[in-house]
Amino acid sequence: MTPAERERTSTARIATVQIKTGQIDWAALTDRVLACCADIAACTEVPGQITRTFLCAPMRDVHARLGSWAAELNLETQVDAGGNWRAVRRSADAAAPTLIIASHLDSVPNAGAYDGVLGVVLGLALLEAQGAVPLPYHVELVGFSEEEGVRFSVPFIGSRALIGTADVLLDLADTQGQTVAQAITAYGLDPAELDAARFVGEVLGYFEIHIEQGPVLEAEGRAAAPVSAIAGQARLNLSLTGKANHAGTTPMGLRRDALTGASELVLAAEELARQTPGLVATIGSMHVLPGASNVIPGEVQFTLDVRHAEDAVRMEALSKLLKRAEQIATERSLTFASELRMEERATPMDPGLGALLAAALEAEGRPAAPLVSGAGHDAMLVGQFWPAVMLFVRSPGGLSHHPDETVLPGDVEVALKVGTRFLRLLADQGR
Amino acid sequence: MTPAERERTSTARIATVQIKTGQIDWAALTDRVLACCADIAACTEVPGQITRTFLCAPMRDVHARLGSWAAELNLETQVDAGGNWRAVRRSADAAAPTLIIASHLDSVPNAGAYDGVLGVVLGLALLEAQGAVPLPYHVELVGFSEEEGVRFSVPFIGSRALIGTADVLLDLADTQGQTVAQAITAYGLDPAELDAARFVGEVLGYFEIHIEQGPVLEAEGRAAAPVSAIAGQARLNLSLTGKANHAGTTPMGLRRDALTGASELVLAAEELARQTPGLVATIGSMHVLPGASNVIPGEVQFTLDVRHAEDAVRMEALSKLLKRAEQIATERSLTFASELRMEERATPMDPGLGALLAAALEAEGRPAAPLVSGAGHDAMLVGQFWPAVMLFVRSPGGLSHHPDETVLPGDVEVALKVGTRFLRLLADQGR
Repeated sequence: MTPAERERTSTARIATVQIKTGQIDWAALTDRVLACCADIAACTEVPGQITRTFLCAPMRDVHARLGSWAAELNLETQVDAGGNWRAVRRSADAAAPTLIIASHLDSVPNAGAYDGVLGVVLGLALLEAQGAVPLPYHVELVGFSEEEGVRFSVPFIGSRALIGTADVLLDLADTQGQTVAQAITAYGLDPAELDAARFVGEVLGYFEIHIEQGPVLEAEGRAAAPVSAIAGQARLNLSLTGKANHAGTTPMGLRRDALTGASELVLAAEELARQTPGLVATIGSMHVLPGASNVIPGEVQFTLDVRHAEDAVRMEALSKLLKRAEQIATERSLTFASELRMEERATPMDPGLGALLAAALEAEGRPAAPLVSGAGHDAMLVGQFWPAVMLFVRSPGGLSHHPDETVLPGDVEVALKVGTRFLRLLADQGR
Repeated sequence: MTPAERERTSTARIATVQIKTGQIDWAALTDRVLACCADIAACTEVPGQITRTFLCAPMRDVHARLGSWAAELNLETQVDAGGNWRAVRRSADAAAPTLIIASHLDSVPNAGAYDGVLGVVLGLALLEAQGAVPLPYHVELVGFSEEEGVRFSVPFIGSRALIGTADVLLDLADTQGQTVAQAITAYGLDPAELDAARFVGEVLGYFEIHIEQGPVLEAEGRAAAPVSAIAGQARLNLSLTGKANHAGTTPMGLRRDALTGASELVLAAEELARQTPGLVATIGSMHVLPGASNVIPGEVQFTLDVRHAEDAVRMEALSKLLKRAEQIATERSLTFASELRMEERATPMDPGLGALLAAALEAEGRPAAPLVSGAGHDAMLVGQFWPAVMLFVRSPGGLSHHPDETVLPGDVEVALKVGTRFLRLLADQGR
């Protein structure tokens, strides 16, 4: 046995001992997590749906429900000026660093009950599972006020407040003309105190549990997986313009059909993504003009969404596709135009925290191969400042942003056990 | 010289003699045709546009303008119960057959000045060019009330009245709830007399001059061409259904993208049409659902329009494309559905009349290779009853159904001269 192997076996053993004391009723704690998610799902702006945008009135009820569980655990709670719900479990060592456990409390319109909320509620359950066992780090649990970007068309207000970059958003207005600053004031908070929402102190790590919102874990028959990186992405508006003409009187050789050109690009994007491991490329929106059955399309307006865990791979793929589009336009006497609407760099998760999370999964007898997150998460912003890691929980049917979004209770129990081991492994890491 | 060649030279000579008398000022007659088209363009339901639907009020002004020219030529005129404007030039031989010269007087919304109208006005000019020269046939000039199908969503009301098949349309309602019968009554005509609108008697032929509404004559540098057939067509509504999913979290291998499937079919249709002489295939309308840049398309609704001069070729092509669509759906785990929305058989023009029209073009020193009409025309319906032929006049830019639709004055003069020769060749045919 090498020293590294001995070390790993040793930390796994310690975590196992703790969990094997039998003091934790995992099934009951899982039930409590699911019941709390259901309670929070009842806090909504739109009756009959789950809809919670930045600092909407029902967010007070969410905070109250989390607060009553936090009170049982003797956590110090507050709502910061960015609208984040925060609860702290102090270590005996005041100078200890902090593990931040977080996810978001807002939702898309007509959402499911687990996107975001599950990670915050599981944070409470993880602290309950720790019980009175001392930890050599503080834990700060954060329920971010906003991640989905619904109300102000810009996402991540909560995590930006935590890392201290939210002040530039204060003057953004929603469709009613109310700014972020006014929304903060209307909720009874003070935008002038936004700077105090920034986390100051030594961060041991950032840990976010989130539903996968995709089909990979289900396809692989796995309950949960660590996330190795959040993919970078580029979104573009594209157009091909030819000439609208009569579908009956214009021979094939005299056409400048924008849709046949666009179809070539759709298939080129699919082929490139299939040939490039980890790349996804999507044309999700397409408008064909003028759009009559007997008129050759004169213009097609469409989008392109390209994502990969490595920025260089994504950028090379995008460059190839834009070159291909120019080539198609030349061959077909069309005009091609593109506009970069959004670009975000990839965020690698912390390899050290990833290895601990993998060890926790393996100790539970679970495969630990990491996934790349194709969707953006708060960990994407936080991960640029502090070491971050995510645990994905299987999404049945890959379904999310939909009222039918769900989780399997068995998977939530796995996440609880894995998270509990992760917290212990992190505690034992320095020994 | 064979007897046939001698016969042809002889008839061409006779026509030439008539035209070479110098009594006809072609340029002045061309100007009159264009001026009359401009006058009629001023008769519109929508000020600032050219819009004339079935028996709209401005149609009275159209009839009045045509009527005053017809009066100069001593023609007998009437408006039949189907709303068709009709003018007759009697032959000295009462038992003679009739040449019907016709086109339509209605328009699409915001139309050009020549689609339909040019053929009726050129009919008057052809009769003026004949002057007092006797013809061994009656000529009946018809300005059809309706060809575009705008008001009642069913086209060809005028030509259906002429061939006696319009009665089934009487109960069709427009978007205001007014039926064809009520529109006829409101105009001061009697729907009960619709049967009397049917042409009874021996028809020598049907002759329609129409703008090409396509780019072929312009591309070939030709002023006019005979039409050998009106293409048959099929129009279908198609759909491919897969599964909408997150563009970031769904790997390429787990996608059921309806748009990539539809794109394959778009390109298959184009390729088949390019490989099949005379075939045109068009996907003109496409709706991509749900239509967000970060969501994989779950459903695509689109159309397919296939046309060819030979029904067997068209039907084989359509069958191949539907089979290909099923194959694409199987390969991509999509569901394919198709609905035949419209099917019209091809209408060959009369070969004898076509040969006379070709001879008239050649006598004018013009190439006479025929075109196939990819668009529907009144000749399509009439040609199922009586020998019919069409002369296409070049459409600059291939433009039609648009305010910028135009004709070149030189081309109108060619059409006048060719039509005049055609009428003489037809007169001399029986000798």
